[in-house]
Amino acid sequence: MSASPSSPTGTSSPLGVHRVLEPAGEYLPQAARVLDARPELWDDEVRIDVETLNLDAASFRQLHDKHGGDGSAIRAEVLDIVRTRGKMQNPVTGSGGMLIGTVAEVGPQSPLGLAPGDRVATLVSLSLTPLAITDGLERWDGLGERVPAAGHAILFGRSIAARLPEDLAPELALMVMDVCGAPALVARTVEAYAGRPPSDTAARSGDGPSVVVLGGAGKSGSLSLAAAAHAGATRRVAVVRDATEAALLEGTGLATHVVVADARSPLGLSEALSSAGGPADLTVVCVDVTGCEQPAILATADGGTVIFFSMATNFAAAALGAEGLAADVTMLVGNGYVPGHAAYALDLLRGNAAVRTLFEGRIED
Amino acid sequence: MSASPSSPTGTSSPLGVHRVLEPAGEYLPQAARVLDARPELWDDEVRIDVETLNLDAASFRQLHDKHGGDGSAIRAEVLDIVRTRGKMQNPVTGSGGMLIGTVAEVGPQSPLGLAPGDRVATLVSLSLTPLAITDGLERWDGLGERVPAAGHAILFGRSIAARLPEDLAPELALMVMDVCGAPALVARTVEAYAGRPPSDTAARSGDGPSVVVLGGAGKSGSLSLAAAAHAGATRRVAVVRDATEAALLEGTGLATHVVVADARSPLGLSEALSSAGGPADLTVVCVDVTGCEQPAILATADGGTVIFFSMATNFAAAALGAEGLAADVTMLVGNGYVPGHAAYALDLLRGNAAVRTLFEGRIED
Repeated sequence: MSASPSSPTGTSSPLGVHRVLEPAGEYLPQAARVLDARPELWDDEVRIDVETLNLDAASFRQLHDKHGGDGSAIRAEVLDIVRTRGKMQNPVTGSGGMLIGTVAEVGPQSPLGLAPGDRVATLVSLSLTPLAITDGLERWDGLGERVPAAGHAILFGRSIAARLPEDLAPELALMVMDVCGAPALVARTVEAYAGRPPSDTAARSGDGPSVVVLGGAGKSGSLSLAAAAHAGATRRVAVVRDATEAALLEGTGLATHVVVADARSPLGLSEALSSAGGPADLTVVCVDVTGCEQPAILATADGGTVIFFSMATNFAAAALGAEGLAADVTMLVGNGYVPGHAAYALDLLRGNAAVRTLFEGRIED
Repeated sequence: MSASPSSPTGTSSPLGVHRVLEPAGEYLPQAARVLDARPELWDDEVRIDVETLNLDAASFRQLHDKHGGDGSAIRAEVLDIVRTRGKMQNPVTGSGGMLIGTVAEVGPQSPLGLAPGDRVATLVSLSLTPLAITDGLERWDGLGERVPAAGHAILFGRSIAARLPEDLAPELALMVMDVCGAPALVARTVEAYAGRPPSDTAARSGDGPSVVVLGGAGKSGSLSLAAAAHAGATRRVAVVRDATEAALLEGTGLATHVVVADARSPLGLSEALSSAGGPADLTVVCVDVTGCEQPAILATADGGTVIFFSMATNFAAAALGAEGLAADVTMLVGNGYVPGHAAYALDLLRGNAAVRTLFEGRIED
């Protein structure tokens, strides 16, 4: 990307501020419009040779809808975004995704503990990762979130990357790590509830907290159900959009109830849940469509918690939606980082044949 | 609004679904584009004669910036929004505000316990409240959030309204109630921390949790500081934008440290906070500008909590921002409803001369 062949000079920031080109002034890479994606490293950086990008689901859906499913147009826009911004950040959704690749070079001051040749997945978003693509994405048809790619990406001092496990296919591990923040935060929240009396109106079967997962048959949804079970939730309701998705979950034990309903329909969802024990202590939003804020709030018992993992979540709709319903619920922004999240998610997959089958089915899509 | 003089028929919903005109299908009033603001009541509704609207700060700022401070144009747009939507919901920010008025009529099935003649403030957002304006807002210059208005508004079965206290000026009470969700949620969060050991990196002076409030001299900010003190926070850092705001807080005891910094500047804010004890257990975002997500996250200790009260918060920027910083923080969407919030905020004002002085200063603006 850089015309200069010389090594970078000046101080680097573990947050990557030194790679921000635009706007001028002081921005972090995630908020920046353009990053410097030159391959030369500052002393605390790492360069990755890219193998595969995994676009964020909300980002891919936006591109797909915008271009009416025209793969060539989608590919052209992704190339254009990376070329002009120096990173793969969807300008509409603000989201990115992640990548896998091989460590090519490690700066002498890098604290990440990586070595050349390590195959890794980046666990920070593409929305803040300097990236250059060199193959025109010629191996990608533009029709799926998984993008075979050649090029390079840069990790900062404070970035996170995980070595790919040797016992799992890289595509499988990537898919799991892409959503690994969700099961970790669900487990933490369920554990916090497990020590308390039930929320005002949440009916509990057995002793553990109750959980509703919107989008229970998806990647983050199925891992969230497995994490909820592991952390002690007894009633676990999976909400799915149709009978095909319901069939993926039925008989797996991941959910105690599988409900077909439109997660955007507040009253429809409430009604559907009434046959599955009613509102829950914890509602987890894993569907990448707009308009799920108030339905999720209505699905949650008084004193309960909603975790929004969908990048399609609208902040004001959630804040004002709860106020408008006089709903005393705690609403969490789904932070994609929880210490140990990748290892925890991979262990859930290894230990749960139903989750593994769901994920392997997606590779063959 | 309605051409028909007859009483409404059919079933009403406590959530107001029966007042949704557009889009067709099943929407809640907050998510709807157009509401039916006819004055005739369903059996569980209440009609209010409007006295004053209080526009949400983010909404007013957007209108003000869009029209370059031209009061007539701002007034014209507010009138147009209410006329076309049947509610005052800013189409860009999604936010509304609140109102005060007098109860004109109470449906026989209303559960709200109001009587004709009661002076009340509505505690649900204008973004979901059916509203009609009849005076062309002729008493408003378009240059402030407080809008003298004539017309009517409708409360549903599940709406919330509070009688105005007799010991406080109505404008004062309205301003407090407008932001009363913030101090209640801050108090609840501080109390939860008070029982725990300090977050990994949060230095505590004394025994209580530490709190940073971005926008500490504003309405929700100053009440949040008072609530934090009341709930047991010892180190309380107010971040303000300039010396004028700092002077409002200095010597009041509301904050233990007053810091002038740009809340949009991640590194600048971190540096400014380092002289005031560093990252805190709880960071409260009360500034209505975009780009405060990552600065707020960096102001928070590992294991700490950020509460976003600003309607200018971007969901994806918060979620991806924390992930990109590998920050293990809990991020809360500032729910405007906590049981008892209005009474708690009014009591804080009554009991804290510094807060009261700050609020009274705003009336005279």
